[in-house]
Amino acid sequence: MNYKMMAYILGNIMQAEGLLMSISALLALYKGEINELRAFLITIILLLVIGTAMKHFAPKNKRIYGREGFVIVALSWIVMSIFGAMPFYLSGAIDGIVNCLFETVSGFTTTGATVLSEIEGLPMSILFWRSFTHWIGGMGILVFVLAIVPLGDERSMHLMKAEAPGPVVSKLVPKIKSTAKILYGIYIVLTILEMILLFAGGMPLFDSVNHALSTAGTGGFSIKNSSIAAYNSPYFEYVITIFMLLFSINFNMFYLLLVRDFKAVFKNEELRYYLVIVGISTAVITANIVHLYPTLESAFRHAVFQVATITSTTGFITANYEEWPELSKTILVVLTMLGACGGSTGGGIKVSRFIILLKLTLREIRHIVHPRSVNIIKLEGQRVSDETIQGTTGYFITYVMLLFGSFILVSIDNYDFTTSITAVITTLGNVGPGLSLVGPVENFSLFSDFSKIVLSLDMLFGRLEIFPMIMLFSPSIWRKA
Amino acid sequence: MNYKMMAYILGNIMQAEGLLMSISALLALYKGEINELRAFLITIILLLVIGTAMKHFAPKNKRIYGREGFVIVALSWIVMSIFGAMPFYLSGAIDGIVNCLFETVSGFTTTGATVLSEIEGLPMSILFWRSFTHWIGGMGILVFVLAIVPLGDERSMHLMKAEAPGPVVSKLVPKIKSTAKILYGIYIVLTILEMILLFAGGMPLFDSVNHALSTAGTGGFSIKNSSIAAYNSPYFEYVITIFMLLFSINFNMFYLLLVRDFKAVFKNEELRYYLVIVGISTAVITANIVHLYPTLESAFRHAVFQVATITSTTGFITANYEEWPELSKTILVVLTMLGACGGSTGGGIKVSRFIILLKLTLREIRHIVHPRSVNIIKLEGQRVSDETIQGTTGYFITYVMLLFGSFILVSIDNYDFTTSITAVITTLGNVGPGLSLVGPVENFSLFSDFSKIVLSLDMLFGRLEIFPMIMLFSPSIWRKA
Repeated sequence: MNYKMMAYILGNIMQAEGLLMSISALLALYKGEINELRAFLITIILLLVIGTAMKHFAPKNKRIYGREGFVIVALSWIVMSIFGAMPFYLSGAIDGIVNCLFETVSGFTTTGATVLSEIEGLPMSILFWRSFTHWIGGMGILVFVLAIVPLGDERSMHLMKAEAPGPVVSKLVPKIKSTAKILYGIYIVLTILEMILLFAGGMPLFDSVNHALSTAGTGGFSIKNSSIAAYNSPYFEYVITIFMLLFSINFNMFYLLLVRDFKAVFKNEELRYYLVIVGISTAVITANIVHLYPTLESAFRHAVFQVATITSTTGFITANYEEWPELSKTILVVLTMLGACGGSTGGGIKVSRFIILLKLTLREIRHIVHPRSVNIIKLEGQRVSDETIQGTTGYFITYVMLLFGSFILVSIDNYDFTTSITAVITTLGNVGPGLSLVGPVENFSLFSDFSKIVLSLDMLFGRLEIFPMIMLFSPSIWRKA
Repeated sequence: MNYKMMAYILGNIMQAEGLLMSISALLALYKGEINELRAFLITIILLLVIGTAMKHFAPKNKRIYGREGFVIVALSWIVMSIFGAMPFYLSGAIDGIVNCLFETVSGFTTTGATVLSEIEGLPMSILFWRSFTHWIGGMGILVFVLAIVPLGDERSMHLMKAEAPGPVVSKLVPKIKSTAKILYGIYIVLTILEMILLFAGGMPLFDSVNHALSTAGTGGFSIKNSSIAAYNSPYFEYVITIFMLLFSINFNMFYLLLVRDFKAVFKNEELRYYLVIVGISTAVITANIVHLYPTLESAFRHAVFQVATITSTTGFITANYEEWPELSKTILVVLTMLGACGGSTGGGIKVSRFIILLKLTLREIRHIVHPRSVNIIKLEGQRVSDETIQGTTGYFITYVMLLFGSFILVSIDNYDFTTSITAVITTLGNVGPGLSLVGPVENFSLFSDFSKIVLSLDMLFGRLEIFPMIMLFSPSIWRKA
């Protein structure tokens, strides 16, 4: 293990977090929130001092192996979460260390599950930091660091692979650093566009900024107690629906649009599957709930918003779907597991992984029918390598085991079956709301500290796609290799 | 597709079913149940006439390919179920064709989920046929046919592979026919032993016979409305617990004991995992429910019975675990999915498959830590072939997709989340009881005909380990190859 290199990268990340947090500090200063300003400043100073100190371990050997990439990424997220929670704790905005950590992990992992029932009373700088953690975590702070830190290309790829969502990571352009910059460029432009559209429609500026940041990361924290339902505005609902969907498709699509390769976008297999899934789910749910709403349009609007919020793994709410028929709820739970497209800011198993798994099933059937046939699996017209197949099945098996293992641990709290299992599914998928006691109009404050820690780990497992987190707990990784 | 060979084997199976059913007819005659006698006789005559006619397609070419084995097995089970349901329908013991089919499929697949709330009022010959379907389905009627029909060895293996539970099928002795005979011998001896132990403890003869047949197949149909709880006898509970566990371990173990190879039994990996799982589950549940029972012994007795009944996929009940704490219920649901050992009469994913899946996860982690290491997976000291690994992951992925697909379909009935999902899990696992409205003291009569058909198919998918059933629905299998 190249510990010096680890310290160097962690130092960079802490400095970056300190810089990003200073925006919240400036807001606290501007709004005169002295108590919060103090909390942010203490954290920022700690981040910058420790971060700068750690960068002094300037490593001669800058080599990073795959496993080191995994460990560095997992450690970064834990360090980020600990320091990210400090403003909540020091300002007294959230009670208890475990609650502060849960809220921050939920923020960075873009889950959006909250322990707070009263949100609107919080200071503005704290509300902004909450939404901003979504935006930072959505694209990944390592991608951010990669865009600004001088690292060799091969090294960066190991980090990118560990943090980026989906089974296959592709570079847009030959250089990782340029890829990271392009991705962040698209991310920033789309965020600002949503902000403008919300503001132009009459949403207050602060609300527009926060909801745009939260949508961009597919997070789900709102600054309103009743989420987007508070505005009671079809316009906002449609705008946010569209942007939730945009942020949940592979960012490569936007790059392809920029370079005018429309054909490639049109032919994209994952995107087509995704749109079909969203379309069918919306149609079925609309038909299933139409009797509950005054018009077909309002039934459709609530259906498509809830489908988009769940499948993009955002977690905003405009309807208490706890009161919908079971079929609609079941579809939403299945979408919670499925999640968004690879290479987006969304979570879940990912559509591309689902396609590979589906094709593996079909291959198994073909193999039984024609035992001697050669069965290649293709995705996006390319042969899927054995390595990717093994990685995908390994991920899926581990995902299911994690799901049921966590379910057993959370059920110690003795809440009903539906609450426990959907709490695990929604945190593993980085979505936010579940059903029953963690339903769309509820929150996660009921759980014990133990369950909150289990669910926080599930959020990290989900965001980092399991293996980087497992590495941290694997003894062999810490042995001299 | 060798249609003549298919007809020949189906004919044999129908004849065998007719012969086995005649025991129920004799009981009806002896008890003077004229109406039931008529129903059984009509069915038996149909089975024998059609079966004999179909055997007249004496095939010259006796070759069977793997895929044909799968199709023959799946078709056999469907034909068996249709004729097996006729006595229930013709005698009027169960209302409605779908209910009759559900009950029969539940019997043959050794699920034990019933649509009946009033069982004790049924005629004895009908009760016996219900229990007997468990016994027939437990070992598999094809294994029975293999033991008596002259077929070449290689041909038989294709049939055996499709019907036998677990990822790997091994022959005890070089000849399949002898293997089938030994297995049936062990099965009969153990069933009679349980019968004697129950009878000796004071259970009426008829009750002893029925419960022994039901235990042997790991079925779960009882002749009492409140299942084994009706007897309120610790002795019966312990005897049945032990036999449920015996019938849920690989029958090869008994053969190894017969040939005095104790070391091989002791070293059996699947058995050791299984005993550890049963032991830990029992210990945790005992601790979790001890405050609900007067003594530690009674808490332990109810815990171990319920663990054994679920993990062996039997489904007898001595306690309404719906009232237990959530942790205990969650463990039972996870055990419902896991199931018994391969090569037993039990259902579920199977412990050996679980071990392979667990080792695949560990391999994936090792692969990330040491990308160039060779990672062989071993089970029972033997290298697991790539074919078995591919089959196991294919099975698991398809299992999860089937589970959630069925969950969506069953939720159309609009029963609560827990009812719908545990109904699917318990039928796919061939267990019997679920939670909530399909809990231990409830039954499956509430579902619509549509859901009952979905759940019946799930029972068949579960019993035949998915792929033979999928073959039936695959168009390419019916094309000329």
